[in-house]
Amino acid sequence: MRGTLPGFRDLYPEDCALRRHIVDTFLAIMGRFLFEEYDGPLLEPLELFTDKSGPEIAEQLFQFEDRGGRRVALRPEMTPTLARMAGSRAQTLRRPIRWCAVGEQFRYERPQKGRLRSFLQLNGDILGEQSYRADGELIGALLSLLAALGLGPDDICLRLSDRKIWQLLLGHFPCDGAAVLRAIDRYGKEPVAVTEERLRNVMGHSAEQFLAHWEQLRACDSLTALKTFFRKFPSQALDERMADWTELLQFLTDLGLGEYVTVDLSVVRGLAYYTGFVFEVFERSGAGRALAGGGRYDDLTEKLVGTALPACGFAIGDVVLANILRGKNLFPGGQAVPDLWIVCDRERQSAALAIATAVRRIGGRVVYELRSELPLDKQLRQADRSGARFALLPADRDWLLKNLSTGETSPSRAEDFPVLWTKIGEFARLEVR
Amino acid sequence: MRGTLPGFRDLYPEDCALRRHIVDTFLAIMGRFLFEEYDGPLLEPLELFTDKSGPEIAEQLFQFEDRGGRRVALRPEMTPTLARMAGSRAQTLRRPIRWCAVGEQFRYERPQKGRLRSFLQLNGDILGEQSYRADGELIGALLSLLAALGLGPDDICLRLSDRKIWQLLLGHFPCDGAAVLRAIDRYGKEPVAVTEERLRNVMGHSAEQFLAHWEQLRACDSLTALKTFFRKFPSQALDERMADWTELLQFLTDLGLGEYVTVDLSVVRGLAYYTGFVFEVFERSGAGRALAGGGRYDDLTEKLVGTALPACGFAIGDVVLANILRGKNLFPGGQAVPDLWIVCDRERQSAALAIATAVRRIGGRVVYELRSELPLDKQLRQADRSGARFALLPADRDWLLKNLSTGETSPSRAEDFPVLWTKIGEFARLEVR
Repeated sequence: MRGTLPGFRDLYPEDCALRRHIVDTFLAIMGRFLFEEYDGPLLEPLELFTDKSGPEIAEQLFQFEDRGGRRVALRPEMTPTLARMAGSRAQTLRRPIRWCAVGEQFRYERPQKGRLRSFLQLNGDILGEQSYRADGELIGALLSLLAALGLGPDDICLRLSDRKIWQLLLGHFPCDGAAVLRAIDRYGKEPVAVTEERLRNVMGHSAEQFLAHWEQLRACDSLTALKTFFRKFPSQALDERMADWTELLQFLTDLGLGEYVTVDLSVVRGLAYYTGFVFEVFERSGAGRALAGGGRYDDLTEKLVGTALPACGFAIGDVVLANILRGKNLFPGGQAVPDLWIVCDRERQSAALAIATAVRRIGGRVVYELRSELPLDKQLRQADRSGARFALLPADRDWLLKNLSTGETSPSRAEDFPVLWTKIGEFARLEVR
Repeated sequence: MRGTLPGFRDLYPEDCALRRHIVDTFLAIMGRFLFEEYDGPLLEPLELFTDKSGPEIAEQLFQFEDRGGRRVALRPEMTPTLARMAGSRAQTLRRPIRWCAVGEQFRYERPQKGRLRSFLQLNGDILGEQSYRADGELIGALLSLLAALGLGPDDICLRLSDRKIWQLLLGHFPCDGAAVLRAIDRYGKEPVAVTEERLRNVMGHSAEQFLAHWEQLRACDSLTALKTFFRKFPSQALDERMADWTELLQFLTDLGLGEYVTVDLSVVRGLAYYTGFVFEVFERSGAGRALAGGGRYDDLTEKLVGTALPACGFAIGDVVLANILRGKNLFPGGQAVPDLWIVCDRERQSAALAIATAVRRIGGRVVYELRSELPLDKQLRQADRSGARFALLPADRDWLLKNLSTGETSPSRAEDFPVLWTKIGEFARLEVR
C-alpha cells in the first residue's frame, strides 16, 4: 500500500489539533459577529463552476463523469454554492445575511509550499447590504479572528484596495480594463519589469503614461497619500469614493483594528467578479503567500442565479495560516493530557470504572490501563509518562489521589465522586498558585 | 443553475447547527475517553479501497482517473486510511492508540431515507490492545456520546454479538462460514423466509439442523440465555469466550451503560474483516436503520499494511442520527441570538463600535444596523425581532441598557465597558430567577 495522492495530507493528531484550534477559534469569533455556519456539497455539477469562471476553470478542477453520466467536480471554492443557497432563499432570509463556512476545497494545481491540492478554507460573507459598513464588519470579523489566533498588527497586515478606484482611474486610459487588472495582479509575484512588459502589451501607446502614474500609486500607503495622488484626476465620483474610504477606515479604527490596515492599490485580486473594496492579508514582513483575501462582489449572485444580492466575502486557507502559527509558536500544542489516571487492580475495576464515569460526566478526561493484569507500579509509571495531572491509587479500602506534578497526595473515599473532583479542583488551584 | 447532485445536501444554518452540535458533542465526549482526532484525505488511490474490499467495491464508489492518470476514489469509509496512518507509525505511537475522526464519506448508492451519497461519519478506534477492556472502552465512548446527545436506554439499544461465537458454532456444521454470515446479515432486512432460503442454498444438507438452532439463538437476548443455549455445544473455547462476554458486560455495567446493551447474535455485520465482538445501535423501537455499528478487526491492519495491530472501532453516520434527534426533539435549535444589539445614530457610531469590540472580546455576540441612516425606532424594532437579549440605546450623552425580554432599563456610561458587561451579567441572572 502506498501513501496519499500528491498534494493530499494525512493529518496525525498533532496536526489535526492545530486545524481544530483554527476551526474552533473561527466559529467562536464569527459567532460574536453573528455569522451563522452553512455548508454545501463537496461534489457539485461541473457547470456550477464553469458558469461562474468560464470553461477554462475545468483545467484546474478534479472533475469527472459520475456513474449516472453527470459531469461533476470537487468544489474549488464556496462562492458558487453560496450564491445558489442564498439566492434560492433570498426572499425569506433576514438581511443582511451573515454566513460562514468551514469546508475542504480541491484544486488540481502543482503542489508547493503553502499550496496543496486539498485544503480547508474558512469563508465569511455578508449578503444583502451595500453599505461600506458591511465591508467593515466583514473585515472586522476576519481581523478579529486573526487577532484571536495571536497574530497582532506587527505580525500581519491587511492590504486594502478598491476595484472602483481602479475602474475610475482606468477610465482615463483607453484600454481593456480587465486585461490591465490581470497584469497588475501579477505585480509582486514576478519581477516588476515583467509586469510592466505585460502592461505595455495590453495598453499599447497609453502604457508609458500609465506606468508613470502606477509607480506613484504603488507608493501610496495611506489615505492621505491616495487623496493627494487623485488630485491629478479630479472627479465627483472619485471624491465620493474617497469619502467611502474615509468611512471604512474609520469603521475599522473604531473596531480597534486600524493598525492592521495598509492602503495598497497594487492588490487587485485576479478574479473578474470583484466590484468594490478588495483586500489581502499578508505577513507584515511581506514573506510568503497571501494568508487571506476577499472583497465585494455585488453582481455575481445575479449573474449566477438571477437574484440581485450585493455581497462581500473573505476566504482563508488553513495551509498558510497553520504554517505561520507554527512558525510564530502560536499553537501551544495538542497532546491530549488526562486529568485523571486511575491505577487499579482487578478487584477495584468496578469501582474504578464508576469513578471514571462520574468524573467524565462533569467534563474530566479520564484514562486507565486496558491491558489485563498490568502490575500497579507499572500502571503508575504509565500515568506519569502520560503527563496526567492526577492519579488515583488504591490504598487500603479507599483511594489515594496523587498530584503527579507536585507529588502531593490526599486520601479519598471511592463513594465521594463529587468530593473527589472538588479535591482535584483544589489541587489544580494549588498548582496555579 | 440547477440544484445539488442527487444524494447531496445544501446545509442551511438550521441544519448546519445540528451537525455542529453533533460534532462538538462527539469531540467533547471522545476527549474525555482520551481519543485524539486524526483525519486523512477525502480523495485516495482507488487501490486503497479495492485492496481491502475487493475490486467489486469500485461499483459503489465515486472513482475516476485524475489529470495525472491515477485511478482515484472519494473515500467511502475511514478504516483503510486509518490502517495506513496507524500502521506506518505503529512502532512509535504509544499504545493503545485511541483515535477518532470526523469526516465526510461518499458512496454511489441509491439515495433513500437515512442514506445519502455523501454524509458525515464519526469514527472511533482503539488499536494495539486485544483485551475485552478495549472493546468495553470503545463501546463505552460510543454510548456515552449517544447519552450526551440525550438518547437514553429507552430510546436506543446496542445489540451486541460476536464473530468468535459464530465461528465456533459454525465449526459444528460443514459450510462456507463467510457465505453463511453474509446470509445471516440479511436477517431483519428481508422476510425471514428469504433469509432461510439463502441459508439452505449455502448450507445444503446441514441447513435444516442449523435453522432449528438458529431460531433458538435469535431468541437469546441475555447472557444467561446464551449460556444455556451453548450447553448444547460444550467446548473449552466456548466457555472461555463466555467468560469474555461476562467481563465485557460487567465492564459496560460498571461504566453505567449496562441498560443500553442487548445480546443479539443475529447481528453479524456484513464486512468480512470482523474477528470478535461486533455491535449495532438501533432505536429501541426497532424502527429505522442502524444508527451506528462496529466491532473488532484484529487482522485487517496486517493484511493492509503488513503491521499486526489488533483493533476495534465504531462508525456513526450523521443522517440517521440527525433524523432521530430531530424526531425526539433533542436539538434545542440553532438560531443565533445576539447578546447585545447596539442602536445608534451616525454621531454615536464610533462609540458603538468600541463598545461592540469590548463586549465581543469577552465573548459576547454583538450586532448593530449596517444600513446607512436607519431611524432609531426602526433599529430598535430590528433588535426586538432578532431575539436579542439586550439593546443599548443612546440616551442624552450616555447609553441606556434595555433588557428586551423584561423591558427593564438601566443607564450606562459608554466609557464603562466592563461595568456594562457586568450589568448585562446581572440582568441575565435576574432573568434566570
